[in-house]
Amino acid sequence: MADHDAVRGSSETGDPLLLTPGPLTTSKRVKEVMVHDWGSRDAAFLKINREVLEQLPAVVNAGSTHVTVPMQGSGTFAVEAMLTTFVPRTGKVLLLVNGAYGQRAKRICLIAGRRIEVHETAEDTPPDLGVIENTLKADPTITHVFAVHCETTSGILNPIPEIGTLVERYGRRLLIDAMSAFGALPLDATQTKFDAVAASSNKCIEGIPGLGFVICRQAALVETQGNATTLVLDLHDQWQGLARTGQYRFTPPIHVIVSFHQALAEFWAEGGQPGRGKRYAENCRVLIEGMRELGFRTLLPDRLQAPIIVTFHMPKDAKFVFEAFYDRLKERGYVIYPGKLTVANSFRIGCIGRLNADHMRGALATIVAVLSELGVKSLKSAAQKTSRS
Amino acid sequence: MADHDAVRGSSETGDPLLLTPGPLTTSKRVKEVMVHDWGSRDAAFLKINREVLEQLPAVVNAGSTHVTVPMQGSGTFAVEAMLTTFVPRTGKVLLLVNGAYGQRAKRICLIAGRRIEVHETAEDTPPDLGVIENTLKADPTITHVFAVHCETTSGILNPIPEIGTLVERYGRRLLIDAMSAFGALPLDATQTKFDAVAASSNKCIEGIPGLGFVICRQAALVETQGNATTLVLDLHDQWQGLARTGQYRFTPPIHVIVSFHQALAEFWAEGGQPGRGKRYAENCRVLIEGMRELGFRTLLPDRLQAPIIVTFHMPKDAKFVFEAFYDRLKERGYVIYPGKLTVANSFRIGCIGRLNADHMRGALATIVAVLSELGVKSLKSAAQKTSRS
Repeated sequence: MADHDAVRGSSETGDPLLLTPGPLTTSKRVKEVMVHDWGSRDAAFLKINREVLEQLPAVVNAGSTHVTVPMQGSGTFAVEAMLTTFVPRTGKVLLLVNGAYGQRAKRICLIAGRRIEVHETAEDTPPDLGVIENTLKADPTITHVFAVHCETTSGILNPIPEIGTLVERYGRRLLIDAMSAFGALPLDATQTKFDAVAASSNKCIEGIPGLGFVICRQAALVETQGNATTLVLDLHDQWQGLARTGQYRFTPPIHVIVSFHQALAEFWAEGGQPGRGKRYAENCRVLIEGMRELGFRTLLPDRLQAPIIVTFHMPKDAKFVFEAFYDRLKERGYVIYPGKLTVANSFRIGCIGRLNADHMRGALATIVAVLSELGVKSLKSAAQKTSRS
Repeated sequence: MADHDAVRGSSETGDPLLLTPGPLTTSKRVKEVMVHDWGSRDAAFLKINREVLEQLPAVVNAGSTHVTVPMQGSGTFAVEAMLTTFVPRTGKVLLLVNGAYGQRAKRICLIAGRRIEVHETAEDTPPDLGVIENTLKADPTITHVFAVHCETTSGILNPIPEIGTLVERYGRRLLIDAMSAFGALPLDATQTKFDAVAASSNKCIEGIPGLGFVICRQAALVETQGNATTLVLDLHDQWQGLARTGQYRFTPPIHVIVSFHQALAEFWAEGGQPGRGKRYAENCRVLIEGMRELGFRTLLPDRLQAPIIVTFHMPKDAKFVFEAFYDRLKERGYVIYPGKLTVANSFRIGCIGRLNADHMRGALATIVAVLSELGVKSLKSAAQKTSRS
């Protein structure tokens, strides 16, 4: 660390770097393309929109089987739309929960009156495949299984391929919340059978917030007519509307979509998911190695850590006051996540968005400087051995 | 007309002028402020957001009684949120319908399983106050009345103050879809009692699309807990979340909100609703006078015409082919509405957004030029006398 200057964090537009789970630092161009007016029914915008929708299934190798249904709002709007459109009112969902986003899906189902079964594990523990198998065997009324790809609460990577194999074996349907994983972690529709995967514009594709979307298996989507319990969140109706007219049923967030179009161009230019995932993995490696060198401990063992966001245990040193740590990092241009979602006393630093290894090194050098200012010295000697199982 | 040049329509960013019901032409600054990165939980953004929410009730003189609950998505997301949050599952809504947006509210209620009564009138006819009164008298189970302020289908102005008086007299609650009217037409919460009014960022405040909002009477909003049938569209939960933490439950469309903040500053600088309404009224006057001079007839008599969007009967001259008319206007920088929503064979031209009387005169001169190119000559002689009742 010592040989790195604590340089001020700065994005291409001179803003602090966002080391969060999103919204993220984006390229300058992604925002500059918005400085125009478009009509929502105008050919120029509709072409841009069509290109966005057509590109997205390829990110998960689903181009020949799936269609994109956009959903105005945020990622959660897309997740609620997915659950309430795909799970019929007579259906039942097995929810795999190990964090806040699994809990949110549970709440969505309860409010919408969908029957549920919950397999909950601790926030540092993936679902138990044996439990999933036994649950599916024991309860033939379960129609769907819901899983979170990277549970952003902790940053844990859930075993989607293995879950998918079980769901397929027992003839059920898989719904995935891939919010913070989409575009960064591999997911292949020809390998893992899923009916739908939900994500949003402001995560690993590096657009700005305002649009969710669901990549839907067309053969499954056609069966969902009449399932939805709302007008606006009805993916079947949204899909049919777009297919019929090329236009949205309700005003789309035009500028967000134009910006997302630019973000997708930059995503493919970086080599798509493998390229983007490689940069994030390097960011994550630099971050974790540097933080461990300083004596911080990760919540998760490396084998469960997705290269999206890293949860660190809060140091026990009384001089480490998180609010001061956060504020001083922010003053120097590094915005980490300002609160915790985990049960464990911890904080989180993201590795996604328009950040590279040098940005992560800059963040680490700044963390060194801030710890020194706060009088925190001896994390390393006090630290327990980091789990690397 | 002849003394006006057919100048190319151009917004501050060089884009075609949008003479539509929205999304609209906006100022350059409204878009330029978006070329930055913000975290969704960051103090700088949260301050901007708070300022947006705090300013909106004042637009309808509701600052001391109502609070703003934002809703990610579009205006329809806000309308669905309003209906499903305010009308309890045991409630019943009288829907006043004279166009597509009233019909949409009806569909929302039917899907959500809310009981309804419908008073429908033709698209050029306001609701009958006598019918409303008799309906409320006859059916004490009606808890709410839903009305559209300016029904954008035709551009008709519905009599909100008179409706409000009846709703108050019979002790029911008024819900208003003021989408295309909010900020342009007067509405005063101290005169017209309403529980909620829904609008969006991309209409007469002249922001970009991506955010709906509902101005809610706080005393009514507190009673709505548990009414909603969704998580994301629950205004009570959204309100409580913001009140508790200052943050959104789910990722907000940050850039849209920052842009809306700038749009509000420009709105107040123009004199708020009276100033903005005056400019739009002048745009509308210039448009209608000019079009009538050319022989076009408005669908609505002047007393029912809101200065938002004007519906014109399609000329009978066979040389007037709407698609060619639309395309040639667009080529010259004037984008009118590319389709009709009315039953009548008609087309629409909007007067809202960052447009002034000179822009309208430019549009008229261009219409003259295009009619001449199309060989349409004799609209005036063929036109029936325009209704000015």
